[in-house]
Amino acid sequence: VTRDIDALLDGFDERKPAALARAVSIVENRRPGADELLARLHPRLGRARRIGVTGPPGAGKSTLTTAMAAAFREKQETVAVIAVDPTSPFTGGALLGDRIRMEAVALDPGVFIRSMATRGSLGGLAAASREASDVLDAYGFDQILIETVGVGQSELDIARTADSSIVVLVPESGDSIQTLKAGLMEIADIFVVNKADRPGADRVRMDIEVMLGLRMGKTGNAPAHHGVDLKALGQKERDAARDAMNPAKAARTAARSDATDSWTPAVIATIAQKSEGVSDVLAAVDRHFHYLEASGTLRERRRARLRDRVVEVTEGLMRGRLWNDAATLGVLDQRLDAMERGETSPFAVAHELLSRAGATLTRKDA
Amino acid sequence: VTRDIDALLDGFDERKPAALARAVSIVENRRPGADELLARLHPRLGRARRIGVTGPPGAGKSTLTTAMAAAFREKQETVAVIAVDPTSPFTGGALLGDRIRMEAVALDPGVFIRSMATRGSLGGLAAASREASDVLDAYGFDQILIETVGVGQSELDIARTADSSIVVLVPESGDSIQTLKAGLMEIADIFVVNKADRPGADRVRMDIEVMLGLRMGKTGNAPAHHGVDLKALGQKERDAARDAMNPAKAARTAARSDATDSWTPAVIATIAQKSEGVSDVLAAVDRHFHYLEASGTLRERRRARLRDRVVEVTEGLMRGRLWNDAATLGVLDQRLDAMERGETSPFAVAHELLSRAGATLTRKDA
Repeated sequence: VTRDIDALLDGFDERKPAALARAVSIVENRRPGADELLARLHPRLGRARRIGVTGPPGAGKSTLTTAMAAAFREKQETVAVIAVDPTSPFTGGALLGDRIRMEAVALDPGVFIRSMATRGSLGGLAAASREASDVLDAYGFDQILIETVGVGQSELDIARTADSSIVVLVPESGDSIQTLKAGLMEIADIFVVNKADRPGADRVRMDIEVMLGLRMGKTGNAPAHHGVDLKALGQKERDAARDAMNPAKAARTAARSDATDSWTPAVIATIAQKSEGVSDVLAAVDRHFHYLEASGTLRERRRARLRDRVVEVTEGLMRGRLWNDAATLGVLDQRLDAMERGETSPFAVAHELLSRAGATLTRKDA
Repeated sequence: VTRDIDALLDGFDERKPAALARAVSIVENRRPGADELLARLHPRLGRARRIGVTGPPGAGKSTLTTAMAAAFREKQETVAVIAVDPTSPFTGGALLGDRIRMEAVALDPGVFIRSMATRGSLGGLAAASREASDVLDAYGFDQILIETVGVGQSELDIARTADSSIVVLVPESGDSIQTLKAGLMEIADIFVVNKADRPGADRVRMDIEVMLGLRMGKTGNAPAHHGVDLKALGQKERDAARDAMNPAKAARTAARSDATDSWTPAVIATIAQKSEGVSDVLAAVDRHFHYLEASGTLRERRRARLRDRVVEVTEGLMRGRLWNDAATLGVLDQRLDAMERGETSPFAVAHELLSRAGATLTRKDA
């Protein structure tokens, strides 16, 4: 295995796409040597920017991701896309238009696209997408876009592995913003209101701002507005929107966002299908990354990620050793009948298993 | 602690609500003695039916849950409701009508309602809701309704702790059924199309049936239709619906559903707000429970749940011992700098931690 990994790393040095594809497969499918490969790649990490793109189904995440990938390519940056979802457009659920656009991007050798289906559970999927990101980072991609469907806890876990998180909403999302509140508040560095040519775009943007506490009267904390000019789109609620669009306020907020001590989530309107507003999204990602670096947050987050990684690997090793141990499994199965009859409890059995496990858990081989 | 638990169990024998409330709190907040309490309650488990109610936001899960609780009460059965979601109607996000309805039900001493907010992560929430269900089961409730928001992986995990799972959709869910497909297919024993007086109800029902492979032409596998008479509601797509409503077919399917060798998910239309169709949901839950018992599936599922429980408790004990160990944490923190510099990797550190952990992991006290 070690010799194979040597060959793979040589392939990385020579930037051979075949080596990359193999490395991603090894990690994604947890083939023998996956851990050793990741350990060997570890010194090469830290160059790529990891950008999460999440939001409810139908928000246009794939279209935005594709448009962002194309925009990065125009700036001569290489892009990897990881689409995490069994029913993702990348795996066949797409509208024809999405697929064609993505294929055009995918033909570019500076772009790598991988979709990930379920691996056991979405918990495993968060690990899988982070490990794949590590491989792509080590290979030398400039930008890694991690697209996830939904805004459930598991998707939030995936988003937390990114440096910057984009939450994509659409005018129709209005009703559910309150529902999403807790999770969104926690992870969104940048909000994108996509399909901004539809009615209700202003309203959704305002809902987001209210949620962020940015429209609380006299503090002047309105966020900068970028992207599509909503005023030109003929929606209602224009009056209410005008205040937030006040150029002086916008400038003040932009200044705030550039400051290193805090980050005010940007709210950006796009029509991803026409690539409108996409360069503003890239600019916001840049500003956010600048903030992360200047404030020390980037280093902090990456150290926290390393720590999480150790915890995860350690627990995975423990679990693997314990539940691959025939003696342990034998005792567990023997106790099922007694538990069923109420003669013993899962807690008593768990303690028994642990006290028996002994050397199994802490052996140095494996 | 043990003496407190003795007192609590006496309270259970005397059916004192205060004892129940305290026991749920101990378990929910993982207070000292939680594991011992659950171990002591273990012999009392197995009487209650655990019914999961899940579905997207806005589907009317709370209204349906409330209506089901009221319907169970009419049959003189006691009901416990666990609402798992920080933004649940039970905790304040509700429409006024929902709240009033729920309060009316909550005043009934035969009903117990508990909402659960996040406990660390939703993974922890699945454990918390199952543990609370254990307490409620041991106390003697006939029916336990576990309501979860969303259809993400974590919610599916919660649903898996139920004997029967109800997935609630609305006419507006049509577009997203394909998106939900994988998860729904896996857990739904009963589909409820709520708000069936809205346009599109027939269509959603048909989408569900197509998804279930129930409308594939000549096999006669159309499911039984219950609940609100869709034909009386003046929707479109009536022609397409007629076939599925064919009484002969419906009878055949009902027979199939009563068979012990397989279960065809029921599809039921309701207007929960008017309690319409709710008795049909209860009847379907009864049929499903009958199937579970007669087929041996119930015993199988409950044994699998016991096994999962042991695995979970054992891993929890391992994690607790490892990460509460000052020496282990000290080494982890010391290695962060080296990992950051790429001199060592999370994998190497994990192996080091495990081989050091030794007695920490398998000690018999704790």
